[in-house]
Amino acid sequence: MARVSSPALDPRIADRLKRDPNGLVCAVVQQHDTREVLMVAWMNDDALARTLATGRATYWSRSRSQLWRKGDTSGHVQLVRKVSLDCDGDALLLEVEQVGAACHTGDRTCFEATTLPVAAPTA
Amino acid sequence: MARVSSPALDPRIADRLKRDPNGLVCAVVQQHDTREVLMVAWMNDDALARTLATGRATYWSRSRSQLWRKGDTSGHVQLVRKVSLDCDGDALLLEVEQVGAACHTGDRTCFEATTLPVAAPTA
Repeated sequence: MARVSSPALDPRIADRLKRDPNGLVCAVVQQHDTREVLMVAWMNDDALARTLATGRATYWSRSRSQLWRKGDTSGHVQLVRKVSLDCDGDALLLEVEQVGAACHTGDRTCFEATTLPVAAPTA
Repeated sequence: MARVSSPALDPRIADRLKRDPNGLVCAVVQQHDTREVLMVAWMNDDALARTLATGRATYWSRSRSQLWRKGDTSGHVQLVRKVSLDCDGDALLLEVEQVGAACHTGDRTCFEATTLPVAAPTA
């Protein structure tokens, strides 16, 4: 990703995060207008600080162990409209304008390819 | 939760899951019609098997280390309409009919209470 100075995460936000043993929280990414769930990714404090400071969705890649600003390679950037923290501080909801496909496969969302069979609930 | 026999997870599904070190995958829960993102929870193989077999959303509680069928205590059940697996097998999307509030605080969703300030993107 582009070399940028690293903004600090507001300590009042940092205090509210409940990170996993790897220092990460889950980020659910939703297209702001259609409300499609596009993907799930992971953020450490630095990724969240950069996302909030720039409005460009930035994640922590668990496979590559590095920050990853969505779209730097693919052009499929995410322009962030809203960020919400959940009630227990371990998940974020990003409402974004997704440019192009969210999924690396070229699908619009990461959830299109596989539907699992589910029974009709009886209660 | 109610004592029920434990269904087995289809091995073809189990083979596609990429579990974290605790054997869990992330589950994003969305109201099927309004498309609100309601909450994020966690599933092990048993929770997913029960969800698919019964149509009632069932999770693994990381804090209580036990299965948790949503609504057994609160009455706020989730009737599952669709389950999708993401492209890399580590996240599920559940589209549900949420009865009552999804959040233990009484809010409709777990993401209502806290919005984080985000800059307008410049690119």
